[in-house]
Amino acid sequence: MREVAIIGVGMTKFGELWDTPLRDLFATAAAECLEDAGVEREKVQSAYIGCMSGGLFVGQEHLASMLTDYAGLKGISATRVESACASGGAAFRAAWMEVASGMSDFVLAGGVEKMNDGADATYCLATAADQEYEVYNGVTFPGLYAMIANAHMEKYGTTPQMLAQVAVKNHANGALNPKAQFQMKITQDTVLGAVRVAEPLGLFDCSPVTDGAACVLLAPVEVAKKLGKPIVKVIGAGHATDTIALHDREDLAAIPAVGEAARRAYEMAGVGPDDIDVAEVHDCFTIAEIVCSEELGFFERGKAGQAALDGVTALDGAKPINTSGGLKSKGHPVGASGIAQICELTLQLTGRAGERQLKKKPRIALAQNMGGSGGSCTVHILEVEQ
Amino acid sequence: MREVAIIGVGMTKFGELWDTPLRDLFATAAAECLEDAGVEREKVQSAYIGCMSGGLFVGQEHLASMLTDYAGLKGISATRVESACASGGAAFRAAWMEVASGMSDFVLAGGVEKMNDGADATYCLATAADQEYEVYNGVTFPGLYAMIANAHMEKYGTTPQMLAQVAVKNHANGALNPKAQFQMKITQDTVLGAVRVAEPLGLFDCSPVTDGAACVLLAPVEVAKKLGKPIVKVIGAGHATDTIALHDREDLAAIPAVGEAARRAYEMAGVGPDDIDVAEVHDCFTIAEIVCSEELGFFERGKAGQAALDGVTALDGAKPINTSGGLKSKGHPVGASGIAQICELTLQLTGRAGERQLKKKPRIALAQNMGGSGGSCTVHILEVEQ
Repeated sequence: MREVAIIGVGMTKFGELWDTPLRDLFATAAAECLEDAGVEREKVQSAYIGCMSGGLFVGQEHLASMLTDYAGLKGISATRVESACASGGAAFRAAWMEVASGMSDFVLAGGVEKMNDGADATYCLATAADQEYEVYNGVTFPGLYAMIANAHMEKYGTTPQMLAQVAVKNHANGALNPKAQFQMKITQDTVLGAVRVAEPLGLFDCSPVTDGAACVLLAPVEVAKKLGKPIVKVIGAGHATDTIALHDREDLAAIPAVGEAARRAYEMAGVGPDDIDVAEVHDCFTIAEIVCSEELGFFERGKAGQAALDGVTALDGAKPINTSGGLKSKGHPVGASGIAQICELTLQLTGRAGERQLKKKPRIALAQNMGGSGGSCTVHILEVEQ
Repeated sequence: MREVAIIGVGMTKFGELWDTPLRDLFATAAAECLEDAGVEREKVQSAYIGCMSGGLFVGQEHLASMLTDYAGLKGISATRVESACASGGAAFRAAWMEVASGMSDFVLAGGVEKMNDGADATYCLATAADQEYEVYNGVTFPGLYAMIANAHMEKYGTTPQMLAQVAVKNHANGALNPKAQFQMKITQDTVLGAVRVAEPLGLFDCSPVTDGAACVLLAPVEVAKKLGKPIVKVIGAGHATDTIALHDREDLAAIPAVGEAARRAYEMAGVGPDDIDVAEVHDCFTIAEIVCSEELGFFERGKAGQAALDGVTALDGAKPINTSGGLKSKGHPVGASGIAQICELTLQLTGRAGERQLKKKPRIALAQNMGGSGGSCTVHILEVEQ
């Protein structure tokens, strides 16, 4: 397999973009990405686009054809991939594999979701859970993650303050990101005093409903070098699945697909958790960042909450997580989030992350994107040549 | 890239399967496929599953995790791909590329759709057209293909009898296929006298609404040889897209994405249309088989209708098309159809097609799977080692 590099990134502002239809979101991100890469449209051979539910959110399937057409890429091989909120990560994986295989040199990996268009977002999102055994009985995602949170609190003594600190930290980072949906700092009091959604999760423990798109362009490392681009290599890729129904899991305080995807990615990359300088972790709910950080091996089980409280995961901490603001503050257009993570890490690795640029430029980064309550997970590890 | 072989096939009966939920359809096809391959579940590393709209048809997204779990494959890398009615072909392409890349040895390519479960199938299918510019104005797929048919009749003199013969021929083949939805022969009079759907298309010019699933297992040729399996190689793969809106096309009597996908597949395979011994062609409507057969180069433009009338495409003709019964008679569970085509061709190439087995065993076969009114198309060329 060939070595693959990320040679361009682009994304829309994330937010409630009522005036912007799905196709325009994608076209905007793709244009910014190709401009960033300095690659002409004619050179792009293939695209993979993550989208969770164009059908339910805006009544549009057959997405890859339409979106690439509107992005000026008519005729290329283009495929939409779906793995709920891990759709972006799955699209990135497929694009990486096509370049690695030798099939194509320039492959676009994109993600898009238009969630604010009148559809019932809670219903649409709940289709990522088991329709017949979970949703039919009335549970939706805040409820599922509340069960995970309660189990984690019971087993490890994780506190509401620890959960709240994840939101406080991610909002602090998002305040420095001009593309984030929420660019304001919040306090522990804001989170703990917010309206309850599903105990112990309040409004500020939950990521928002967001419109947005993100794209990255992939090419073989050898080709990237000829273009004179900074070389951000994909050195590890892991993908794992699990039961999508929470009641089929053995331990509600763990999300095994994350650990397994990470294990596969670390093995391919030949690195471990301690080698990761910066990570984007799937914080659809505050508890998710905590459990996933433990599954990724960044902290021992039951210790990630305290690490957040201690500032370890803050922008100036030893293990910065979600420098972009994460799903919590940057926003969570579900099909795009996995690609937006790669965008952020590429910017950090190449020293282009603006006000939120890490003081010590990172060398190795990790993106973890998750579907549902952990029914699917992708982990990608990136390394910049310095 | 490594050479890839198809080492197992499986599919459910196609039809109105009211008693069988989506997950059971897939698990049944996967079990039959793995049994056919003689490969244990533990060896399967990855799966790609085509499904057009689990969200709209049955309120279930996040499909690959759930379906592989129920098929006894929990934990593997599993991704759903969507390209409307070409979802199966797109899944096959992704699975082929993963094996070809060297990433995995045993990869399952599947397709599934549960269309009879209470949802409005016409609305769900219409999301494969341009929602904002076509569907909003009232057009659905029978109307779109009627426009293509009218244009083809006007430009080339194609007649209703020629269209009808496609249905008559495919029903004759389907009558020999125990898994077909409609296992009965029909006559020209049946087709021409049927209730009109959208002139010039009547009820028997249209493929049905179908539940079903199909799977194939892929492995490197070298691995397949060690297993002692007949070697059905994937020698060509082409994928192309186009505008999904018909009004953006230059010529309504053509479907350029089919021609382009075929050109790419022929080039990779080093063969041409005359080398194809048997083909499964996307006959969602009778006119589609005619136009696609021309785009594939089997007949000159405007000549495919006469070829059908002359029996050239019949089971005992010089260029047999849709020996399975095609989408018209075998049925069209939209996400599964592209995989079911590969199943049929693999059976024909290995002499296992039962009553519909071609008298002269074919050596090279072609599968063409299409999304929407031609907004996407995959073409795969298979060759059996004899």
